[in-house]
Amino acid sequence: MKVLLLAAGRSRRVKPIEDKNFLKFFGMTLIEHQLSRLERAGFKDILIIAGAHNIEQLKKIAKPFGAKVFEQKNLDDGMADAVLSVEKEVGKDDLFIVSSNDIVEVKAYESMKKALKSNADSYLLAYRVSEYFPGGYLKLSGKRITGIVEKPEPGKEPSEFINLVLHIHRKPAKLFAELKKVSSTRDDRYEVALDKLMKERNFEAVPYAGYWQPVKFPWHILDLLKYGLARTKRKIHKSAQIAKTAVINGPVVIEEGVKIFDHAMIQGPAYIGKNSVVANNALVRESMIGDRCVIGFSTEVARSFIGDDCWFHSNYVGDTVMGDDCSFGAGAICANLRLDEKDIGESGRNKLGPVLGSHIRVGVQTSLMPGIRIGSNTMITSGLTIAQDIEEGKFVSGKFEIKIEENRAKLDSGKREEMKKKL
Amino acid sequence: MKVLLLAAGRSRRVKPIEDKNFLKFFGMTLIEHQLSRLERAGFKDILIIAGAHNIEQLKKIAKPFGAKVFEQKNLDDGMADAVLSVEKEVGKDDLFIVSSNDIVEVKAYESMKKALKSNADSYLLAYRVSEYFPGGYLKLSGKRITGIVEKPEPGKEPSEFINLVLHIHRKPAKLFAELKKVSSTRDDRYEVALDKLMKERNFEAVPYAGYWQPVKFPWHILDLLKYGLARTKRKIHKSAQIAKTAVINGPVVIEEGVKIFDHAMIQGPAYIGKNSVVANNALVRESMIGDRCVIGFSTEVARSFIGDDCWFHSNYVGDTVMGDDCSFGAGAICANLRLDEKDIGESGRNKLGPVLGSHIRVGVQTSLMPGIRIGSNTMITSGLTIAQDIEEGKFVSGKFEIKIEENRAKLDSGKREEMKKKL
Amino acid sequence: MKVLLLAAGRSRRVKPIEDKNFLKFFGMTLIEHQLSRLERAGFKDILIIAGAHNIEQLKKIAKPFGAKVFEQKNLDDGMADAVLSVEKEVGKDDLFIVSSNDIVEVKAYESMKKALKSNADSYLLAYRVSEYFPGGYLKLSGKRITGIVEKPEPGKEPSEFINLVLHIHRKPAKLFAELKKVSSTRDDRYEVALDKLMKERNFEAVPYAGYWQPVKFPWHILDLLKYGLARTKRKIHKSAQIAKTAVINGPVVIEEGVKIFDHAMIQGPAYIGKNSVVANNALVRESMIGDRCVIGFSTEVARSFIGDDCWFHSNYVGDTVMGDDCSFGAGAICANLRLDEKDIGESGRNKLGPVLGSHIRVGVQTSLMPGIRIGSNTMITSGLTIAQDIEEGKFVSGKFEIKIEENRAKLDSGKREEMKKKL
Repeated sequence: MKVLLLAAGRSRRVKPIEDKNFLKFFGMTLIEHQLSRLERAGFKDILIIAGAHNIEQLKKIAKPFGAKVFEQKNLDDGMADAVLSVEKEVGKDDLFIVSSNDIVEVKAYESMKKALKSNADSYLLAYRVSEYFPGGYLKLSGKRITGIVEKPEPGKEPSEFINLVLHIHRKPAKLFAELKKVSSTRDDRYEVALDKLMKERNFEAVPYAGYWQPVKFPWHILDLLKYGLARTKRKIHKSAQIAKTAVINGPVVIEEGVKIFDHAMIQGPAYIGKNSVVANNALVRESMIGDRCVIGFSTEVARSFIGDDCWFHSNYVGDTVMGDDCSFGAGAICANLRLDEKDIGESGRNKLGPVLGSHIRVGVQTSLMPGIRIGSNTMITSGLTIAQDIEEGKFVSGKFEIKIEENRAKLDSGKREEMKKKL
Repeated sequence: MKVLLLAAGRSRRVKPIEDKNFLKFFGMTLIEHQLSRLERAGFKDILIIAGAHNIEQLKKIAKPFGAKVFEQKNLDDGMADAVLSVEKEVGKDDLFIVSSNDIVEVKAYESMKKALKSNADSYLLAYRVSEYFPGGYLKLSGKRITGIVEKPEPGKEPSEFINLVLHIHRKPAKLFAELKKVSSTRDDRYEVALDKLMKERNFEAVPYAGYWQPVKFPWHILDLLKYGLARTKRKIHKSAQIAKTAVINGPVVIEEGVKIFDHAMIQGPAYIGKNSVVANNALVRESMIGDRCVIGFSTEVARSFIGDDCWFHSNYVGDTVMGDDCSFGAGAICANLRLDEKDIGESGRNKLGPVLGSHIRVGVQTSLMPGIRIGSNTMITSGLTIAQDIEEGKFVSGKFEIKIEENRAKLDSGKREEMKKKL
Repeated sequence: MKVLLLAAGRSRRVKPIEDKNFLKFFGMTLIEHQLSRLERAGFKDILIIAGAHNIEQLKKIAKPFGAKVFEQKNLDDGMADAVLSVEKEVGKDDLFIVSSNDIVEVKAYESMKKALKSNADSYLLAYRVSEYFPGGYLKLSGKRITGIVEKPEPGKEPSEFINLVLHIHRKPAKLFAELKKVSSTRDDRYEVALDKLMKERNFEAVPYAGYWQPVKFPWHILDLLKYGLARTKRKIHKSAQIAKTAVINGPVVIEEGVKIFDHAMIQGPAYIGKNSVVANNALVRESMIGDRCVIGFSTEVARSFIGDDCWFHSNYVGDTVMGDDCSFGAGAICANLRLDEKDIGESGRNKLGPVLGSHIRVGVQTSLMPGIRIGSNTMITSGLTIAQDIEEGKFVSGKFEIKIEENRAKLDSGKREEMKKKL
């Protein structure tokens, strides 16, 4: 069996995060986590579909997994083009199509494998939802899938199962043939072909009620982080230098070369990447810190995803997602709650900080408002309140008018002594 | 004897604090403290004069003390109307009139009680002042009060005693009669009647040199707090969870359900109300924190009165008074000292923060200047410097112009490694 | 031998620092350090050249060293006028001219002394440079100096030695005579005279490769501080009060009467002057703090020179130089790094904070940008970003427009309880 891992998507909705496949969670990219889960479930023959924008990086990652990488030329064409681009490679093998957009547990892959014992032609993972989800619902007749209803009206769902892209097609020659028949001007050729095949062939639902996390929007990164952190077990690398007065509480992973300074606190679950520094009086809680970061004096990082090489200094960073090489001047703040405490944008969360790409500099005392997106390679000067999205590669400054007059005030030097007594 | 506790005042000068009677000091409202002090001094039969605005709440508070509540209809009419409204209830009993505006020690009430051994018709508490105070001075002939001089010129005080409203009138029928004679268009009918009666009857001064604190202006709340804190004895509820690295120093009361996180510090005298949290690296000193507050990471609260349900996060709150349900974004600051170190407004203090009502939200990085008043139900957005009073129910925002250009700066990735070595 | 210590310079380039001679390093002024080093090298007969602006203070300082102070009338006239003003006093003694602008080790003075064993007429300290320095290079013939080349083109230096003003002239009558011959309209009369004398007389180079630090620009103060701190040995005065949870790490000098509060940290090398307070959660590292300072709650002072009587409160102060009696409101920040991480001004450093004179007040939340100069007796109000030099005696304020509307937002009181669970 060949596994087709679809990784060519351009992650537009997750912007300013460049490519979610390469987001590093706990020292490993998301796509590596997926490859590793497939490997653990016993799938060995993996074909990765890349786009021109990420093929080189995917090739590097694929190598140690023995996976092959293929380029999808027409990225607007969706799954059909991706599947057809490996027709020759798959030949007469079974085909397991897996999207890199959906994070599921190893047992989801294992269930797919076990399901093969039956005699069906195709197998689709059927994710049981407990409340309405705007996805494709499976029309079922017993275990047999007879159709997929896209975003039915709430209350009119044909079942409690939605379709996730974990699809096995035995002897997929028919699938290839059908895909070619659908007009290539449509972007849902795969879905149309599937619908056609379901009428003729035996599609079996493989029920799954475990963890599932789509990674479409930036806040999904925080959801995924939370899931990962909840499974963290305490592990402190022997090379880590931890000051006596620092407090490391609960399930915390501290990697090689990390330094934790006096009066710092890591409140688990948390992950501190290689060679990072958590400086005096800093607090990291329910967060992932990448490699070579500096969580400077009196900084709090809470429930946040922080890439590699990020620097903070007396900052508050809450419910924030950021890529690599972001640096904050002293006192800069990532706000994460509206004054009216309403949900932020379309995130469905009332706590969400800004989302930052990579290679960003933020000046001292600048505040980034909840949910805004800051593009990569951007610099924002000091003392600003940024309440809008900023595209990548920008230099953002403010206009400050100051008035300079003669100072007529006289200071009474005695008062300080009085004040000092009250310290 | 009936005690008439005057609590109908509308606390206009203490705005934006809504009703000083209900200010909770150390878990008990100011009016309950007063009722309790009267009870301890042996006064049992208490009539409370309320206004339409506070009668319901006063009734609830009165109940456990067995006190009765009467409504004063015409609040502009001052004490006369209040006294007359209980004429029937008092009947032939002696009448002890007590203002809720003046906080005195139990021994003041006890002195009044002891004074009754003599044969006078009325007794007025005579507060000994050591320096000029703009109030009503007693004209004395021995112990006998022959008149009251309102705000005499400094140096022309008839005695060193001023009149506080702790007045006992034996068989007050004459007082009632006299009050009715005075034209009802005047707002000083009680004072006019008293003046008349003093000529005919024996008014005795009851000297008192103990603690007295009027509660007219918001900063009086801080004065009262300081007095209360100075009498605090260390008491930590057994249910409180205090991290090992937290430091609790001196006379500190920590109530039920409080949590103190690592590296936090409470420097007594201080009071932390029920179920409040003092988070990592926070410092509370010489302050009262109400119930269910969160003193978040790296916040300092110094010499402040904080109501219930207030939330802070990396804030500085100094010499500040605030009601309930106020919440500050990270980095917001309550400034408490002028640059020229002069006294703030008419407070006579060079350290005074802002005064806040209830249900207020302040955005990240916003500063409230010394002595300003922020009305209840107000929201102030991020990054502002507020240097004026804000009425209640307002939404305050700023105007920020930012300039967005192409970022032409190039970063030298090597520099960070150098900087890290210097950490 | 008479030592002539030139201290009349007006320190213009070190502005807003008033007079570098009186900068206190580790409890002693720079000029006292110099006098002390001369004393240690065995020089006893010291004449200090002062200007009208600093003669009184220099006289006080000179006294315990037994040094005499002379006034140079014409400060624009450079060294010649200074030297001639002590002609009578020097008489037939040898003359050792030392500039207070150059800080060298005791061994430089000792080398000068030892050199006297030879038979030369004059001796000049010859500082060996390893890379190009825009100064006066010595033209040598063996040990003999035959001329001085001012700022030669790089690559055209006549030797690897530059001239520092540590010059001994034996029997200086000829020098005095020569100085008088040069036209008094020139400001380089001393140099012209020297050039002339070198042709006729034997000038010997005294090689020196030890520490040399000119003090021309404010950042030189930080260079000097770094040098001094590197030589610090741990010494904690017995009267200092240090909280149990405070951490004092490495070579730290803590003077008499200092108080260090809980969870504070001093990371050596560092110096804390007499009667200063390092409050809760503050961090001082690689810095010198003057006397009677208050390093308030959660302040970080890093690699900075702080004069006497300075107050901080939740500030970041990095790579900053400030005089006496400067006070920062909560949250004010001394920025020390450009967003593009380039060198700051002409300092050759990529980390440099602002430079402040004395008697300065900075409001809450105000940021001072890297490398700017703030003159003495200046006040800067709250919430500003100051990106330009400010002259002395100014009052700097901002213009904030706020918009006040009715608050139409409704708060959902239930949300807070949910949020609290996530703390």
